[in-house]
Amino acid sequence: MPSRISRIEITPVAFRDPPLLNVVGVHQPWALRAVVEVHTDEGSSGVGETYGDEEHLARLRAAASRVVGCDPYDLHGIRRAVAVPLATGTGDAGRSFGGMLDLDSAVDTVFAPFEVACLDLVGREVGRPVSDLLGGAVRDRVPFSGYLFYKWAGHPGQPDDDWGEALKPEAIVDQARRMVRDYGFTALKLKGGVLPPEEEADAVEALADAFPGTPLRLDPNGAWTPETSIRVARRLSATLEYLEDPTTGIGGMAEVAAGTDLPLATNMCVISFEHLRPAVLAGAVQIVLADHHLWGGLRRSALLGGITEAFGMGLSMHSNSHLGISLAAMVHLAASTDHLGYACDTHYPWKTQDLVEPGVLDFVDGSVAVPTGPGLGIELDRDALGALHEQYLGCGVRRREDAAYMRTVDPGFRANTGRW
Amino acid sequence: MPSRISRIEITPVAFRDPPLLNVVGVHQPWALRAVVEVHTDEGSSGVGETYGDEEHLARLRAAASRVVGCDPYDLHGIRRAVAVPLATGTGDAGRSFGGMLDLDSAVDTVFAPFEVACLDLVGREVGRPVSDLLGGAVRDRVPFSGYLFYKWAGHPGQPDDDWGEALKPEAIVDQARRMVRDYGFTALKLKGGVLPPEEEADAVEALADAFPGTPLRLDPNGAWTPETSIRVARRLSATLEYLEDPTTGIGGMAEVAAGTDLPLATNMCVISFEHLRPAVLAGAVQIVLADHHLWGGLRRSALLGGITEAFGMGLSMHSNSHLGISLAAMVHLAASTDHLGYACDTHYPWKTQDLVEPGVLDFVDGSVAVPTGPGLGIELDRDALGALHEQYLGCGVRRREDAAYMRTVDPGFRANTGRW
Repeated sequence: MPSRISRIEITPVAFRDPPLLNVVGVHQPWALRAVVEVHTDEGSSGVGETYGDEEHLARLRAAASRVVGCDPYDLHGIRRAVAVPLATGTGDAGRSFGGMLDLDSAVDTVFAPFEVACLDLVGREVGRPVSDLLGGAVRDRVPFSGYLFYKWAGHPGQPDDDWGEALKPEAIVDQARRMVRDYGFTALKLKGGVLPPEEEADAVEALADAFPGTPLRLDPNGAWTPETSIRVARRLSATLEYLEDPTTGIGGMAEVAAGTDLPLATNMCVISFEHLRPAVLAGAVQIVLADHHLWGGLRRSALLGGITEAFGMGLSMHSNSHLGISLAAMVHLAASTDHLGYACDTHYPWKTQDLVEPGVLDFVDGSVAVPTGPGLGIELDRDALGALHEQYLGCGVRRREDAAYMRTVDPGFRANTGRW
Repeated sequence: MPSRISRIEITPVAFRDPPLLNVVGVHQPWALRAVVEVHTDEGSSGVGETYGDEEHLARLRAAASRVVGCDPYDLHGIRRAVAVPLATGTGDAGRSFGGMLDLDSAVDTVFAPFEVACLDLVGREVGRPVSDLLGGAVRDRVPFSGYLFYKWAGHPGQPDDDWGEALKPEAIVDQARRMVRDYGFTALKLKGGVLPPEEEADAVEALADAFPGTPLRLDPNGAWTPETSIRVARRLSATLEYLEDPTTGIGGMAEVAAGTDLPLATNMCVISFEHLRPAVLAGAVQIVLADHHLWGGLRRSALLGGITEAFGMGLSMHSNSHLGISLAAMVHLAASTDHLGYACDTHYPWKTQDLVEPGVLDFVDGSVAVPTGPGLGIELDRDALGALHEQYLGCGVRRREDAAYMRTVDPGFRANTGRW
């Protein structure tokens, strides 16, 4: 008899997050995640990490009751089991992204942490790293980009954080210098969509001056019209490695693509498998950002990688605010995906707490060594998990609401999507 | 330390094959295959099966010397190792298909049996069927189609075989009756490209009369012009489940697709990943036939399945003449590929010998139960393997040469490709 999943624990956690600005508002003081632990009747276990907003938590719990009894190898069966309670009423699946993304279905976002946990579990059982279960690591270190944000000096009513305000090009350059000094990043990404496009282009050019030769990316998250996108893309065509989601929609991106030679990347207009065909037919994007939390786990993200390779598109990796379980999973996915040709995004430097034992996921020269231990190669720090769960219970945040939080400061704020 | 591949045996085998007719000629009296056995320094082993022509054998042997020393989990590394000696001089990779296919690269055909053998090996090590290593079986039985052929009564100069001649619609119907009686097939495929199109359409209509409601397919292997293809497709649009490769090339198939509502399938114009983008852009095909021997093994065939699903195409499965190792691998792939929506093709009923222990791969109601034992779930019959290898040594056939063999009977024969 194959082993069966006998018990699943879902633990929401909260960790402090700086006031990072984006197209829909500003990060709340607490970022939410959920830890999914899967146990078998034979005493094996594995972990996954995902979004922690209350709608997603409710879906995870509904799914977990159906995943119990499944074989941890039967990932297809687990995905089907997860899909059953999600067949209706998942129209708000975009909630996990603070309003930045529209998702038609929650199946892949709910399935993902169960899949990662099962791969961790199987890897532990057979004594192999998850990268081996994905076909083998093609690299032993995974490079990440330094993720730069416009930000306030501190959350309203709270002391300044130690990053301080970043609203001008010089401050973005200072932020980058610290990122590069502390982590060794050899690629940099600026989250845009916050200030008028020319100001963001100024910041990119300041970065190019300060870090000559370093690949640079700008992600306005759809804040611009196609016309503006083409204008700024032409200005930055020799400066950027790629421009991510300057405008919204496959049609809009295709219009921009036709007007510039600068490669366009997306984590907004192609966020599930059914978006690939129209994007290919329209010639809308040159690079797709994988994200295993969004695309249904590591194996389906590898499928996305294979599709981008087959269709002549590039592959990079997206990040939301996350902790160490997600980082480990991202590293195993990136390590086993030969086609991944860009440094991966990560919010990791912005957090000040974690729930995995230290020492495995350190950044050296901007890269994280692929864990070689069984499964994800990390261990949960139970005390830290408990502390982050206590923070969840006490923090009062239950959803990611960047726009609503921004309106506590700027009551007239509306998302910058398509603003310029 | 992970285990390492310490030894690889490549055994060419030959088995008797009836004079089955196709677009490029006729099957020789012996069909060739190669058995690839992979062993680790820890005593594990696994098997794969592939083409057995001498060019392919030479490539397998060159690759094997580089695969020794690899970790059997490191499928990406093994594929890279295989690719090294194939970097040049693989322009004749189409040889394995008797001239029916043009392949730009032999990497995937050479890699495939090593991949299957490693999956068999890993499955045996962890006590899991290969379908579990592919994400889990979504079905416990895999349906196959009865594969009908125009044929001579026997090979020239030899006694008639017990199938007898099949050159008329009534004989094809008789052949189908025997296939259905002995195997329970609930779908039927006729290999065409042999007789003038209207005669082959007559045979399809005779099958439809004899087997009402049974899904029927016709595969002329590119024997027709686009104009003829459209004419016959319109005639058979209510009769066929799909029409496979009526004409050659993505452009030709797109022309046909524009002129008929009958779904078009291919195992000729889309036979590697780089063909997918142009086929999608041209709207050339509605169904792609997977074949793990051709597409680089089971995991890359699963990738093909995921691509067809994402791009709104159907997925079926192709077969060349094969033995039980291949059948087992096909069953595990089909079992774990939810998107596979058609009965798979197989030449299996046409062979009279095998090299796996009997009992596991029996057809019941046209389906093969997914083996539940570790790995592929089959065991090599060493005596049979030896006998089939002896046949290889003695038979004199070293390449698949359907056209040359046909010319021994019909000196003026040229392939029927594009003939009608």
